[in-house]
Amino acid sequence: MEIRRSGRLLAVMKQVESSVWFQGFIIGIIIVAALTVGAKTYSLPYGVELSINYLDNFITVFFLVELSLRFIACDDKRRFLKDPWNLFDSIIVIGSLVPISDTDMILVARLLRVFRVLRLVSVIPDLRYLINALLKAIPKMGYIALLMFIIFYLFAAVGSIFFSGVNETLWGDIAISMLTLFRVATFEDWTDVMYETMEVYPMSWIFYIIFIFLTAFVFLNMMVGVVLDVMTRETAQEEHENQENHHKELVHQIAELQAQVARLSDKIDASHTPSQNKKE
Amino acid sequence: MEIRRSGRLLAVMKQVESSVWFQGFIIGIIIVAALTVGAKTYSLPYGVELSINYLDNFITVFFLVELSLRFIACDDKRRFLKDPWNLFDSIIVIGSLVPISDTDMILVARLLRVFRVLRLVSVIPDLRYLINALLKAIPKMGYIALLMFIIFYLFAAVGSIFFSGVNETLWGDIAISMLTLFRVATFEDWTDVMYETMEVYPMSWIFYIIFIFLTAFVFLNMMVGVVLDVMTRETAQEEHENQENHHKELVHQIAELQAQVARLSDKIDASHTPSQNKKE
Amino acid sequence: MEIRRSGRLLAVMKQVESSVWFQGFIIGIIIVAALTVGAKTYSLPYGVELSINYLDNFITVFFLVELSLRFIACDDKRRFLKDPWNLFDSIIVIGSLVPISDTDMILVARLLRVFRVLRLVSVIPDLRYLINALLKAIPKMGYIALLMFIIFYLFAAVGSIFFSGVNETLWGDIAISMLTLFRVATFEDWTDVMYETMEVYPMSWIFYIIFIFLTAFVFLNMMVGVVLDVMTRETAQEEHENQENHHKELVHQIAELQAQVARLSDKIDASHTPSQNKKE
Amino acid sequence: MEIRRSGRLLAVMKQVESSVWFQGFIIGIIIVAALTVGAKTYSLPYGVELSINYLDNFITVFFLVELSLRFIACDDKRRFLKDPWNLFDSIIVIGSLVPISDTDMILVARLLRVFRVLRLVSVIPDLRYLINALLKAIPKMGYIALLMFIIFYLFAAVGSIFFSGVNETLWGDIAISMLTLFRVATFEDWTDVMYETMEVYPMSWIFYIIFIFLTAFVFLNMMVGVVLDVMTRETAQEEHENQENHHKELVHQIAELQAQVARLSDKIDASHTPSQNKKE
Repeated sequence: MEIRRSGRLLAVMKQVESSVWFQGFIIGIIIVAALTVGAKTYSLPYGVELSINYLDNFITVFFLVELSLRFIACDDKRRFLKDPWNLFDSIIVIGSLVPISDTDMILVARLLRVFRVLRLVSVIPDLRYLINALLKAIPKMGYIALLMFIIFYLFAAVGSIFFSGVNETLWGDIAISMLTLFRVATFEDWTDVMYETMEVYPMSWIFYIIFIFLTAFVFLNMMVGVVLDVMTRETAQEEHENQENHHKELVHQIAELQAQVARLSDKIDASHTPSQNKKE
Repeated sequence: MEIRRSGRLLAVMKQVESSVWFQGFIIGIIIVAALTVGAKTYSLPYGVELSINYLDNFITVFFLVELSLRFIACDDKRRFLKDPWNLFDSIIVIGSLVPISDTDMILVARLLRVFRVLRLVSVIPDLRYLINALLKAIPKMGYIALLMFIIFYLFAAVGSIFFSGVNETLWGDIAISMLTLFRVATFEDWTDVMYETMEVYPMSWIFYIIFIFLTAFVFLNMMVGVVLDVMTRETAQEEHENQENHHKELVHQIAELQAQVARLSDKIDASHTPSQNKKE
Repeated sequence: MEIRRSGRLLAVMKQVESSVWFQGFIIGIIIVAALTVGAKTYSLPYGVELSINYLDNFITVFFLVELSLRFIACDDKRRFLKDPWNLFDSIIVIGSLVPISDTDMILVARLLRVFRVLRLVSVIPDLRYLINALLKAIPKMGYIALLMFIIFYLFAAVGSIFFSGVNETLWGDIAISMLTLFRVATFEDWTDVMYETMEVYPMSWIFYIIFIFLTAFVFLNMMVGVVLDVMTRETAQEEHENQENHHKELVHQIAELQAQVARLSDKIDASHTPSQNKKE
Repeated sequence: MEIRRSGRLLAVMKQVESSVWFQGFIIGIIIVAALTVGAKTYSLPYGVELSINYLDNFITVFFLVELSLRFIACDDKRRFLKDPWNLFDSIIVIGSLVPISDTDMILVARLLRVFRVLRLVSVIPDLRYLINALLKAIPKMGYIALLMFIIFYLFAAVGSIFFSGVNETLWGDIAISMLTLFRVATFEDWTDVMYETMEVYPMSWIFYIIFIFLTAFVFLNMMVGVVLDVMTRETAQEEHENQENHHKELVHQIAELQAQVARLSDKIDASHTPSQNKKE
């Protein structure tokens, strides 16, 4: 009896979990959670703040229940745990269980609740698909990113050797220099940085020009390259399959024709030269 | 008599409406309307301003007449109203009927007259086509735009939690933080924003670097992706059709050849083995 | 005698004009001309300046002689004048004849001599080809440029209506507003412009955000679109020709096969059924 | 005996040199060298600095030994010297032999040691491949780079003629003007530069707008063009080869069919008309 009832419960739970209404309801809850995160950044009257806190706790509990429900409804518990999106959800849900009342941890706890907004990504399938596609583009950039890092490291080392005497806050050590170079790479008041060092080293503009050209060139290659790569592969794939089908069709048709001619040849052999050998 | 006359009038109106001269005349009027909009931003002598106001009123009336004329000349009144461009024109024309003399509404009325410049888009067919093409590219961006919004929302929440104490005007609440982050995303004096928060949180540069990388990466993917998508589809479409035609031609030719061989086979059957069955 | 000598002279001139040495010599002279243009921007000792002026005059004369020589060496005088590159050269050469000693015109005269650097473009064939390719990309942008102008005009009109009271130098009239908007479109201290107007109109950030999104979206579409268009057409062209050749080859081969089968059919007809009609 | 031993030693050295462990060890050493370069930019206690100096010297010796070992292990000494990557390594290794104790040369010596980080590029094959690919893209840009330089030179000349009186530090001579124009091209506080000259020449905004449009247009063409070119060629290459194979397969198959029909034709000739000539 017990087993059958729990079995029926499980079936109901599965049905609930995969229904569009439930999905929509969860998305709604996440949006409400996101709004509470946003609302808390405003200074609100005490009553509103209190009710938001209650709402917040309710959402925390709801997310925990929803995740447990999904875990129970899943047949293969190991596959559930292996799916990175479920792991992602679990970390976010468990993270938001940190009690917000603790004054020392208040910032961390609030931060963890902010990340609940990210559950929107794991709940909406199209967003999940998009993230997967974007993640796929990253490994291709590995070596270009390494090259970029080497360029930054090298120029930062050179920069801090020469310019640390000019401006300690911009070129003090290699880490600060890399941040300054990132600033130069985004063209953010880079001439101010340059004019300052040019007063001591008048030829230091060469350093900046070479750095900007190198960075822009490598960066553009990386970005456009990866995007293009993904795009052309996708559109070319379709075209390629189409061509393969056409080709197979033609090959098949010609092969049929060959068989037809061969049959004809045999027929002529059979009718006219019965005394000859069938095969030449 | 009345009906026939109005019928003849309608035919004349249709002819007028679709003539190149009329189209050119309307474009001319819109350009004049645009120029009056521009002229009004300068401080002009009273006489000129007065005559511009008269011209303005004339254009308002002219646009109303032209729209009515086009509505009357159209056979299918329902299709006329369903066309978004006609709706667009109607709103602009009716909007500019708001009396400009009312001192309270003067800014709104002037604003509505500015939008008459937009009629240039609905009158020139190539521009209308271009807008349609650009609009088609937007839905594809839907989910990437949503992802972008989530990134902005998340970082704005984190930013206003940590940095609201550092600078109230930049990180006061989540809305202001999002505007500040948009500023950072455009690289506009973003280091000033960063250096300010780095004084309190020395590691806060990580926040900015991650945000810039995420934003730039997703943004580039979106933009280049959509543009590429439209482009490759267009050029590939042509190429694809060409290949389809080639393929069909080859298939047809080989099929004809097969028929030829089949006829030959039948002929041999007929001439040599009249006693056998025609079909094997 | 005279005619024959001038004919021989003409042949020599043609030979000289088309020789690689002469081309190289002209490129050398243009580079020297470019260097004198650059040198004049430095404050030089009197002797050097004087010799540069002599050199300058020599180059002016040389260019005039070279152009005349090329005109004489050309058989079809009308075609020579119709070639836009020759026209371009003529304007530059004649322009630099303006006497530089005239104190009133000194800036204009110096300016005209600067443009002699542009002759480098008309002399090097690859640069000429490149410019032609870039010019070809412009007409395609016509309507997008028009759309861009409409967007700028509209926002400039709205901006000068609302913000002219806030900052006269940035939003005074529609022309200044367009320049300010161009500045915003390049992200150049655009937040300073925005924060200023936000003090009077707190919601004016919407104006800037919409403008930036519209501009960036249309601009990116334009640029990437045109470049892609040129590129894909070029690479696709080659591929297309290749496919056409393949297709024709296959069609031809199958047609030959058909003829072969037809001959076979005729042969069978001829040998076995001489009494029947050749054509069914 | 001596020769055989050295031969055995050479074989061992070759084995060591090409082993994955050795490659990994070298990469490790280079990373340590890079870290010492970075560590030196911080102010460290004397003991740490001293040990870093010892480590530095050890790395210098190790690199020298490793390069010699690779040179000895290489069979074809001339090919070793011709390989640009080996030349690159040799220059870096020999460069870092400059004694760092010499106070006059201390900056140069430190600089040369910084470049040892670049050995990471020559050691990791994927990075070497990437650099080769990027270098291949450069010559294609030759003429566009030249055109860009002409544009900069021309505008710099015009700028220094007109604006040198307005701001000597920005437009003093043609070299400084080019740097200022590069700043304008990166949109870095370009309106400050413009507003300054607009006070004297109110129409000078035309100069900047034209320059920005020209630069952006040519630059975008260059960058996107080159990247696209490399990309499309790579993906198209694969597709092209696939098509070529398909085509050849079809041609071969049809040719076989033709031969089959020809044999059939011969057979009919042979059996029915033995008195006729085999070849028509």
